[in-house]
Amino acid sequence: MKPDVYSQKCGSRQVLDRIGDRWSVLVVLTLADGTKRYGDLARRIQGVSQKMLTQTLRALERDGLVTREVHASVPPRVDYALTELGRSLLDLVSGLEAWATTHLDEVEAARVRYDAQAM
Amino acid sequence: MKPDVYSQKCGSRQVLDRIGDRWSVLVVLTLADGTKRYGDLARRIQGVSQKMLTQTLRALERDGLVTREVHASVPPRVDYALTELGRSLLDLVSGLEAWATTHLDEVEAARVRYDAQAM
Repeated sequence: MKPDVYSQKCGSRQVLDRIGDRWSVLVVLTLADGTKRYGDLARRIQGVSQKMLTQTLRALERDGLVTREVHASVPPRVDYALTELGRSLLDLVSGLEAWATTHLDEVEAARVRYDAQAM
Repeated sequence: MKPDVYSQKCGSRQVLDRIGDRWSVLVVLTLADGTKRYGDLARRIQGVSQKMLTQTLRALERDGLVTREVHASVPPRVDYALTELGRSLLDLVSGLEAWATTHLDEVEAARVRYDAQAM
């Protein structure tokens, strides 16, 4: 059966949720230029809570998009990197980022118009 | 100032949330081939609640991605269509859909491996 994101039961809809998720997008973008430590990610992605970053990384690891490597140093160092599957997402998430930054002014202008009409 | 999705306060992060949102993606995809009525959208997008579909359409309208046109018929007919800004999203959301359906098997296989290791 062909995967169908319109179908409630198709796993492709869950995959869509993962790859469209705000924190997933930001983690994948941050890992674009190579391996990062947990603290690097936490610093780069402003406003993410430790709980949310941990959950996002675990979900990305479970979905095969990110690898997690623990080094037996003191204190232990944990490195995250994109897998090949994760790298295949880079064009898409870069596209989302580019759209969001390019069209921000238009979206904000539309909101002002909408809110003015609603008054 | 250049928009920066990594910054907590930048509006581009909200825009990223909108365009990555599961229901937004499905609405934009459904409107790709032209104007649709509310009922058409509700039927096509399986599993969306009336509340969620209404909220999503209102948010997309407010962000300038979708137009809403009420026709004075009995009963009133409400048509939704993509704006030019909304159409500029089509390549991206089609890309998200294509990635989700193309890589579903790989993601599901990765989950099975991950869950087996966690036991």
